[in-house]
Amino acid sequence: MGTTQLETVPEPKYWHLKTVLSEALDQDFAVGEVLPNERELAARFGVARATLRQALEQLELEGRLQRRRGVGTTVAPPRVGVAVGTAEHSWPGEGVDGWEPVDAAEGLAPAAVLKLLGVGVGVGVGVGVGTGVDGGGGLGGGLASDEPVHTVRRTRVAQGQAVAAELLYVPARSVPGLPAIEAPAGPARARAVLRELQRLVLDGQDRSVELGSARADDARELDRLPGAPVLLVTTRYFTAAGTAAVSVATYRADTCRLTFGDSGAVEITHEPRVAS
Amino acid sequence: MGTTQLETVPEPKYWHLKTVLSEALDQDFAVGEVLPNERELAARFGVARATLRQALEQLELEGRLQRRRGVGTTVAPPRVGVAVGTAEHSWPGEGVDGWEPVDAAEGLAPAAVLKLLGVGVGVGVGVGVGTGVDGGGGLGGGLASDEPVHTVRRTRVAQGQAVAAELLYVPARSVPGLPAIEAPAGPARARAVLRELQRLVLDGQDRSVELGSARADDARELDRLPGAPVLLVTTRYFTAAGTAAVSVATYRADTCRLTFGDSGAVEITHEPRVAS
Repeated sequence: MGTTQLETVPEPKYWHLKTVLSEALDQDFAVGEVLPNERELAARFGVARATLRQALEQLELEGRLQRRRGVGTTVAPPRVGVAVGTAEHSWPGEGVDGWEPVDAAEGLAPAAVLKLLGVGVGVGVGVGVGTGVDGGGGLGGGLASDEPVHTVRRTRVAQGQAVAAELLYVPARSVPGLPAIEAPAGPARARAVLRELQRLVLDGQDRSVELGSARADDARELDRLPGAPVLLVTTRYFTAAGTAAVSVATYRADTCRLTFGDSGAVEITHEPRVAS
Repeated sequence: MGTTQLETVPEPKYWHLKTVLSEALDQDFAVGEVLPNERELAARFGVARATLRQALEQLELEGRLQRRRGVGTTVAPPRVGVAVGTAEHSWPGEGVDGWEPVDAAEGLAPAAVLKLLGVGVGVGVGVGVGTGVDGGGGLGGGLASDEPVHTVRRTRVAQGQAVAAELLYVPARSVPGLPAIEAPAGPARARAVLRELQRLVLDGQDRSVELGSARADDARELDRLPGAPVLLVTTRYFTAAGTAAVSVATYRADTCRLTFGDSGAVEITHEPRVAS
C-alpha cells in the first residue's frame, strides 16, 4: 500500500480517502485479510483518525469491509446474490431457497402488520406514489384487531451463512384446518402452519424493500450487532379473499444483494460494485 | 416526553433507549418537529451522550428521524413508496414514473458495468445462490471493452422530491440508428438515446437491490451528503441478442421504500415500519 499523501480536492476528505482505500483493497489485499489498525492506517494516508473512520464506514456500507469485534477490520468477500422475487407464484414453504422453519406461536400481530393484513381498513387512498392502493384488500372485510395470528419464524441460509430472519404472520382464519392440539410450538408447528397455508390458491404477492436496523433477536440470529443496517423485505400474499399472510424478512445488508428475476430470466449473481 | 430513567435490561442500552425514543416520537412529536438537542435529550433519559447518539443513528436508519446540517434532528415523514418492479416490460423512458432525462455523454463504461453488459464473458458459472448464470447473455458474443457506451443520466422525482439518480449505460450497438450529429449532449441527447432504445423489442429485465453509499455527484442531486446510505438498484434490460442496457439507480434510503408489484397487484404504499 505504501505511504500515500492525499492531494487537496474539493470533495470531502473522507470521500477521496475512501476512493484511494478502495483501490488499495483491490490491489494489495485479499478477501478475509485483516487491515492494519486505525492508527497505522491514518498515519500511512496522512489523515486524521476521524477522517479514516468515516472512510472505513463508507466502505463497510458498500460491503467492501467487515468490522467484527475481536477480529478487526477485514476485506469482505463479494456480496451473495439472494433471489427474492420469484417468477412462480409460490407460498412460503420449507427448504425452498434455503428457508427453514424455526418456530411458531399464536398471539396478536403488531399494529403495522395488522394494517397490512387489512384490519379495519376498507379500500383506502394511497399515500405513496404510483397507482398503489393503501391497506385495502383485507381478508373479505377486515380482520378484527384481536383476531389471533400465527407467527412463524423462518431462517434463510445461503452459502452456509444465515442471511435472513423472517417473521411470517398468518391470521388464524387463513388456516382454518390447522389442528389445535398437535405440536403447539417449535419447528413442527411452523411446518403445520406452512402446510395449511399452501392449501390456499395464491393470487399474487407484492413486496417492498427498505433500509432498517436489526432488532436484537434478528441480530443474534444473523450474527450481527443489534441496530446493524439491514434490508427489510415486506411481502403480502394475496388470495381472492384478500391478504392471507404478511412476511417481514430481515436480510443482512453487509453480505447480501437482493435479486429480482423477471419471467425466470437470468439473474445478476455477481458483484456489480458499480457506485464506488 | 418527561424525565424517564431507563431500567437495567439485558439488551444494549442504546437499543432500549431507541425503543423508548420511538414511542416518544409516536406520542409527543409531530412530523417535521425539531427534537431537543443531544445534551438535553441525554439528560432527560439519563443516558450518556454516546448512548443517545447510537439510538439516534438507529432511528435515522429506520427512517424515523432526519438529521440535516443547520436544521438539527427532525421527525421524518413516513417513507415514500416508489414502484421499482413494473409488471409491463418497458424500456427506460422519459416522464414515466417521474423519471426525467438530464444528460447524456458518450464514453467508456466502468469495468463493473462492462461485466454486466457481457464484455468478454461467455456463459459463466454463477457465484451467487439460486439459478442465476453469471454475466452471460452479452450482446451476441460479447462487447469489446473499448466499444463506446452512451451514458444517460436521469433523475426521478416523487412527491416533489428527487428520490433517485440513475446512470443508464447503452452500448452504441444497441442504438445503431442514433444520429451522431444532432445534439451531442444534454437532455435532448438523452431523449434521443431513450427514443432509439425503445425501438428494440424488450425480452425481459432483472434487477438487484443492495445497500451502498452515495457518490458525490448523486449525493448532490439527492440533497444528501456524500457517503449517505442509499439503495442501489441495478437493472439489466434484455433483448433476444443479449443485454442491451444496464441501469444503476441510486435511491435515497432515508425517505424511500422500494415497492415491487406482481402482476399489477395492489402495492404496499404506506409505512410498514414493522421492525422497530
